[in-house]
Amino acid sequence: MQLSDGFLIWNKLTQDQQRQLSQAAVLRTAQQGELLHAGQGDCQGLLVVADGQLRAYILSDQGRQITLYRLFERDVCLFSASCMMQSIQFSIAIEAEKPTKLWVIPPDVYRQVMGQSAVLANYTNDLMASRFSEVMWRVEQIVFKSFDCRLAAFLLEESENEGTDKLTITHEKIANHLGTAREVVTRMLRYFQQEQMVQLTRGTVLLTDRPALIRLSRQ
Amino acid sequence: MQLSDGFLIWNKLTQDQQRQLSQAAVLRTAQQGELLHAGQGDCQGLLVVADGQLRAYILSDQGRQITLYRLFERDVCLFSASCMMQSIQFSIAIEAEKPTKLWVIPPDVYRQVMGQSAVLANYTNDLMASRFSEVMWRVEQIVFKSFDCRLAAFLLEESENEGTDKLTITHEKIANHLGTAREVVTRMLRYFQQEQMVQLTRGTVLLTDRPALIRLSRQ
Repeated sequence: MQLSDGFLIWNKLTQDQQRQLSQAAVLRTAQQGELLHAGQGDCQGLLVVADGQLRAYILSDQGRQITLYRLFERDVCLFSASCMMQSIQFSIAIEAEKPTKLWVIPPDVYRQVMGQSAVLANYTNDLMASRFSEVMWRVEQIVFKSFDCRLAAFLLEESENEGTDKLTITHEKIANHLGTAREVVTRMLRYFQQEQMVQLTRGTVLLTDRPALIRLSRQ
Repeated sequence: MQLSDGFLIWNKLTQDQQRQLSQAAVLRTAQQGELLHAGQGDCQGLLVVADGQLRAYILSDQGRQITLYRLFERDVCLFSASCMMQSIQFSIAIEAEKPTKLWVIPPDVYRQVMGQSAVLANYTNDLMASRFSEVMWRVEQIVFKSFDCRLAAFLLEESENEGTDKLTITHEKIANHLGTAREVVTRMLRYFQQEQMVQLTRGTVLLTDRPALIRLSRQ
């Protein structure tokens, strides 16, 4: 994958703009679990995922977390460059969920090109609208759905991301994604097991009845 | 107020772009309670508030509401033009909370000017980032704060919006803003009254101890 693959509109940029972005971008790796962005003071730049997986989440004063969205190959992370736009007045954290290769584009270079290029500015608008849509989906889940629906939706989503029905994940991690306590997750998973929707072993959750989980997630 | 007052960058647009937006914009009025935008199918255009107050909220299948943000004079509402950007994949509703005068700019005209103008595209980016920040603030409140903090924050915010300590608002309305049931609001307001932070009469809430409410809202 090339840097240009992160930008669907790359060919509509001028050669000079392409050169500015390419020359400024730095390819780096992040280890699994590495924190790449930790709130508003932090402003490394735009992240373009070459390979791996990032997770964006919010964190309460008490250490509770909620996953907002994931970023995969070719995805661009704007909010790690929050200083680029004054109007971004919120804090999210971004960590590498898997070993990840990514480009970092310094915020000042990106802002400069975006200032000249309606194409890049409109593309950035689209990126932000996409993330906004994902966040709104989560909000609706959190606010309007009961916890059993949310947990079923989370298991299905994980299963799709990982391409397997056997998830290697602790109850603690699931609790962090969904912004609840480990005990709540354990209790609900046991109920799912009783209903034969999943089978639990230490450190894994096996999805055994996808149709039932899908029905539940849509309630 | 002029249409141009809604756009801080108006003077940086070309005369032709200014003319395109001005000629397409239609000034209209909305009655208190009028629904101006009802989810994704609806795409009237950008709304620029000349006078009055709009409320953006989400709505569950069961009719529960949560207020996301308010728009006042000079504010621009993007999401009523959601068809303008493919990546806007969520539904919000927008209603006039007070009698409101507003301009409506058709989505195709706005999109066309934004496609040519890096200035307008960057300004639109800023608008979206501002709304995103407001929504994230709500999300953190909903997810991480207990209901007493959220209610205290809401009463203070209303008091600031209205410029008075005596709020004319029903418990039902407060419940709709905060996404909960009326009974929950009534119970908590009675507790606030007991603690002498508010004084309740039919249809009004009088804030009697702002410092205590502020302390509570910050917990």
